[in-house]
Amino acid sequence: MDNKIIINMKEVTCGLDIGGTNSVIGIVDREGQILAEDTVSTRKYPVVEDFVEACYSTMQKLKESLGEEVKIMGVGIGAPNANYYNGTIEHPPNLVWEGIIPLADLFKKYFDVPVVLTNDANAAAMGEMIFGGARGMKHFIEYTLGTGLGSGIVVNGEILYGHTGFAGEIGHIIMKPGGRDCGCGRQGCLENYASATGLVRTMHELLGKRRDESKLRKIPCEDLDSKQIAEAANEGDKIALEAFDDTAKILALSIANAVAFSSPEAVFLFGGLANAGDLIFKPTRKYMEETLQIMFKGTVKLLPSEIPESKGAVMGASALAWHEILNK
Amino acid sequence: MDNKIIINMKEVTCGLDIGGTNSVIGIVDREGQILAEDTVSTRKYPVVEDFVEACYSTMQKLKESLGEEVKIMGVGIGAPNANYYNGTIEHPPNLVWEGIIPLADLFKKYFDVPVVLTNDANAAAMGEMIFGGARGMKHFIEYTLGTGLGSGIVVNGEILYGHTGFAGEIGHIIMKPGGRDCGCGRQGCLENYASATGLVRTMHELLGKRRDESKLRKIPCEDLDSKQIAEAANEGDKIALEAFDDTAKILALSIANAVAFSSPEAVFLFGGLANAGDLIFKPTRKYMEETLQIMFKGTVKLLPSEIPESKGAVMGASALAWHEILNK
Repeated sequence: MDNKIIINMKEVTCGLDIGGTNSVIGIVDREGQILAEDTVSTRKYPVVEDFVEACYSTMQKLKESLGEEVKIMGVGIGAPNANYYNGTIEHPPNLVWEGIIPLADLFKKYFDVPVVLTNDANAAAMGEMIFGGARGMKHFIEYTLGTGLGSGIVVNGEILYGHTGFAGEIGHIIMKPGGRDCGCGRQGCLENYASATGLVRTMHELLGKRRDESKLRKIPCEDLDSKQIAEAANEGDKIALEAFDDTAKILALSIANAVAFSSPEAVFLFGGLANAGDLIFKPTRKYMEETLQIMFKGTVKLLPSEIPESKGAVMGASALAWHEILNK
Repeated sequence: MDNKIIINMKEVTCGLDIGGTNSVIGIVDREGQILAEDTVSTRKYPVVEDFVEACYSTMQKLKESLGEEVKIMGVGIGAPNANYYNGTIEHPPNLVWEGIIPLADLFKKYFDVPVVLTNDANAAAMGEMIFGGARGMKHFIEYTLGTGLGSGIVVNGEILYGHTGFAGEIGHIIMKPGGRDCGCGRQGCLENYASATGLVRTMHELLGKRRDESKLRKIPCEDLDSKQIAEAANEGDKIALEAFDDTAKILALSIANAVAFSSPEAVFLFGGLANAGDLIFKPTRKYMEETLQIMFKGTVKLLPSEIPESKGAVMGASALAWHEILNK
């Protein structure tokens, strides 16, 4: 028999959300509670090794700040252009680092635990599965409706990464060939219609098309945002309501098509546009049911994410580590 | 130590392809060779139990007809409206049986081996993975381009069945809302454009739109088929060539969108329209590369199926059983 001293240490993971300006680090327990959180400037570290060192030292400080002994079981990272398979960030357009950055390997110099990374939409899906409304689900899709539209597709309880590691780009499914210009260089991608930005672009088009009065006509074009449109719609503004209806229609079509592809049990909407509540959920649910192929009618739940938006990035990154630890 | 008599029996599976009029049964070895094959009338058996008994007795006869001793390791069934999870056929519109038919259970009364079923497109994908061009691939999609468009999506080496068991209906992704009437009761589904039937419908539209001469103008509308269009295109018929080009364009868009979803290593085209060779492959490849999002360019192979069309159904059904045996 071995002689062991058993110390009752709380198991936690580190979630790191890398943004263009700042990155957020949190220590998260198995229930999704963020026990401690801090920010590291991303921009301040043009050399990625320095950034990793700064993150490590912040993690240590966070760990020490806790009143109890904790053990970091894994590190999960949400980052733009992250490749889960290689643990790399590849040619990120909005980060200070260039080329292919072996981020997981750099972190593994400090941690002898799993270090995993993926993009923020996949991390959000993982957060939903580990801590949110998708607990126990094997097949679901998370739509993150912010400036753009991100998505995380879960198949058989695993994020769908595909051959390249970059699967799950529903925001870049072309819905209208020759349609609105997209940041990806093509035209008509879903995210130019079904996102906070898409809603604003639809509103602009409708302000041109309709002659109804709208207080939004007083706002300079480039100042108009999705919250103002939601406010106007809640006050009964006809054009704003039509903008939501158009947005719901194309979002519902995209969901019906995604269901034909992977037949999920639920689709979760997270962030920005999802916060408009009934304005977006009611018409999207209606159009979705109308549009679904007969065998899929009544099989898909359209649900708001159960992850708070402000905590989503860190919880998602942390969930990624938890999933790795619990399933591998 | 046990006393065992070891007889060297060749391991095989039975593949059964259920059609509205006839069903085909084959005994297939691990290399995909169909060792023996026969047909059972589906229509002749309005009571499904009688059909299953007839299939069993045919399987026994086929087994005995072989010069060598073989052992049936599993039974794979391709059938319309088949549900893999439940082993059922559910409300098939073109079969003599009604309601939900527990086909796997009925066969298990005769066989103490795995009995699995799925629809014919998923079976085709499985045939490609076990015997064809997708051997060793973890992520690919099979398009079956016949009267309609079926698809089997493989993710992590498994057919994507989704929450309901009915995932993988790329033919019913709506590409043109309000477009061509579809047999599913909706409008604008892919299969009304990218299939043998779709090509014919496109040709009709172009014969109306264009004024160019075409010998196809002499053929009565309802007699026109995809082979005649392929022949005309090969002879340089402008309208027929345009019909192929239009078909390739929408097929390529569908593939680019499927890549955004699941990022496969390859897309295989099987059956009918795929036999048109360069007429369909060349323009589809060109439009696909043009249409793919930048990170997916060059990552996807567009390939002809390596399964002979005439053997595809039985090989696919058999492959389903082989996969079950080898992986479960």
